[in-house]
Amino acid sequence: MRQKNDLSSKKIKTFTPKLIIAASESSADILYASKFNAPDDFLYYETESEKCIVVSPLEYSRALEEAGEEVKVIDRVPLMKQVRQGESFAVALSRILGINCWQVPASFPYSEAQALLNAGIQLQCLEDQPFFPERLVKNEKEIEAIQASVAVTEEIMCQLRDILIKSKINTKGFLEYKRRILTCEFLRSELEGNFKKKGFSASHTIIAPGIQGAAPHNHGTGPVPAGVPIVADIFPRSDATGYWGDMTRTFVKGKAKPIVKRAFKAVKKASDTAKKMLHDGVIAADVHKAAAEVLTAAGFPTGRGKDGMPCGFFHGLGHGVGLEIHEAPRVSPLNEKPLVSGNVVSIEPGLYYPEWGGIRLEDLVVIQKKSYRNFNTMEMELELP
Amino acid sequence: MRQKNDLSSKKIKTFTPKLIIAASESSADILYASKFNAPDDFLYYETESEKCIVVSPLEYSRALEEAGEEVKVIDRVPLMKQVRQGESFAVALSRILGINCWQVPASFPYSEAQALLNAGIQLQCLEDQPFFPERLVKNEKEIEAIQASVAVTEEIMCQLRDILIKSKINTKGFLEYKRRILTCEFLRSELEGNFKKKGFSASHTIIAPGIQGAAPHNHGTGPVPAGVPIVADIFPRSDATGYWGDMTRTFVKGKAKPIVKRAFKAVKKASDTAKKMLHDGVIAADVHKAAAEVLTAAGFPTGRGKDGMPCGFFHGLGHGVGLEIHEAPRVSPLNEKPLVSGNVVSIEPGLYYPEWGGIRLEDLVVIQKKSYRNFNTMEMELELP
Repeated sequence: MRQKNDLSSKKIKTFTPKLIIAASESSADILYASKFNAPDDFLYYETESEKCIVVSPLEYSRALEEAGEEVKVIDRVPLMKQVRQGESFAVALSRILGINCWQVPASFPYSEAQALLNAGIQLQCLEDQPFFPERLVKNEKEIEAIQASVAVTEEIMCQLRDILIKSKINTKGFLEYKRRILTCEFLRSELEGNFKKKGFSASHTIIAPGIQGAAPHNHGTGPVPAGVPIVADIFPRSDATGYWGDMTRTFVKGKAKPIVKRAFKAVKKASDTAKKMLHDGVIAADVHKAAAEVLTAAGFPTGRGKDGMPCGFFHGLGHGVGLEIHEAPRVSPLNEKPLVSGNVVSIEPGLYYPEWGGIRLEDLVVIQKKSYRNFNTMEMELELP
Repeated sequence: MRQKNDLSSKKIKTFTPKLIIAASESSADILYASKFNAPDDFLYYETESEKCIVVSPLEYSRALEEAGEEVKVIDRVPLMKQVRQGESFAVALSRILGINCWQVPASFPYSEAQALLNAGIQLQCLEDQPFFPERLVKNEKEIEAIQASVAVTEEIMCQLRDILIKSKINTKGFLEYKRRILTCEFLRSELEGNFKKKGFSASHTIIAPGIQGAAPHNHGTGPVPAGVPIVADIFPRSDATGYWGDMTRTFVKGKAKPIVKRAFKAVKKASDTAKKMLHDGVIAADVHKAAAEVLTAAGFPTGRGKDGMPCGFFHGLGHGVGLEIHEAPRVSPLNEKPLVSGNVVSIEPGLYYPEWGGIRLEDLVVIQKKSYRNFNTMEMELELP
């Protein structure tokens, strides 16, 4: 709570105009501020009196319809006439508006920064603080959007589960679906295609069976074997709202080995333990540490495996999810700050060993005053018939 | 030709190490240089003796498998131990490598630039020149990748054509497909879903019927009417190679009005005229101007429409396509440089009027010594039965 008050009082005392030049797809900040989703770069600025976007004539009429209600849309072309020879557009705009200091995001393009600095315009770039701190605390509309993305994610996860259940195990121990060898590539394009048909974009979907799952970001390739854990990490973004869903389950088709069963149980317990701790004010690092301790206590140490690769539980327990798939706040040993009501974070303990692969279980939750709400309802089960 | 020689001689004389910090999805440069496709930021550097990427342990083993052959993959974590208190990672790396001047792309993040500059490290940022000039001239492998993306684009465009042909016109003049009103939204998600099932990502697909098509970037919404032009601009990216396809056709279900027929004929003629001029050495602006003249001569002026919006032919004739959907070289009145063999550009004249909508026809071509090769084979037809 103290932290929140600090931020808002700072903001009131010293309002510095904000400037972003980016495409909505690569900058969640410009999408958050403008509500305008465009694949090419455009300019957003915010003074104490107005919020404006400056767009190309190609985007002008669409921007008028789609940008946020309080956002003024300006056609770039008439403004271009006021740009002096050798002057950058942003420099000209600063001159016209009479602004000599902008607050810019960490990702602000250096070439634009250079031109502004050369023209004597100051730039403030707060690295250790989000550009829009209010993005961390989701409002009702944002929570609805994330819930919608998670609901579709669960629907697609159920499709995956169904395909695995309907698959038969062939004599070589691989899955066959509709009389064809089932591959990670087929599953990925099938699931991602089904997302698109529902207005969601998914890429890099992880379907990583067996030892491939020991590398948390291995996408997975080749035929899917029975009897090994299959890490399925699915994270689509709504084309309409821009908000992400993110969810992981780990399945075994048929019977799992005892060590995999034990690991699954430990990861599930780590998830439960972490979730039980969640409430407004809990220190993020403490939640991570509690989950990590459950895993160690269950006999799954973290370190380097026989292949020299990191093994055990070697990533953060979770991350913020919103207009970015990975955003603040992190639920990691490095984040000693409290989680607050309205933070949306993933809780995703995992175990990874080169001997047998990986287990990861991920739910998405919103922090509440005394507890949390889980966006996910799908149970965590390991073995599928 | 002269221009090319200038660039290469400059490069030999003064090699400055290169530094990029970005995600492959938002920076085509880092994807081009590393061949590693990752959704989160990583670091690429290039000295006279080596090309390296520094990635998180989560991505390390995947990067080893997927990065370019000549690219060394470094795990970020062991390096982190050499970072001094308060030092940024890029500053520490520069110190370890003994580098005091980096060449960085225009989009280099300002916060990283600031840290480097504060540590006394110089940054060179060439704004008017691509970071990797060699990206403009596609090699055989790149041309194959683009051809593959265009082939899938044509396949999906044929699906759209089929759906329009199979649709019936109801008593209110709207299309019905499989007994349901056909909407732009349905077509978009259907086509984009089919792309995904083939391993391609498409978003912002334009299906803009009637007056919606008068704004070149209007995505299109609502039921599809018969008898009006439907601008279909489809541009998927291969998930495997990162190379884009880009193609536009304009269809009318049923009979087109005489003015729409005339406009279509003029745009087709502008496309043919422009393509006939293409060869190594032709000035890009001249190609644009020739196409623009065809349209004016056919009685379609460019200016402001009755609604105050730009009308006629008010965008560039084409743009480069590769790892970015819009990249250099531009085929616009502002680009007085020659196109050279290996440039891949779109040729997409269009006409837009608020009274009846838009016509745009877009092929993708590669410039050759004495001519060009068209990646597209699908004919340009207006009226569909």
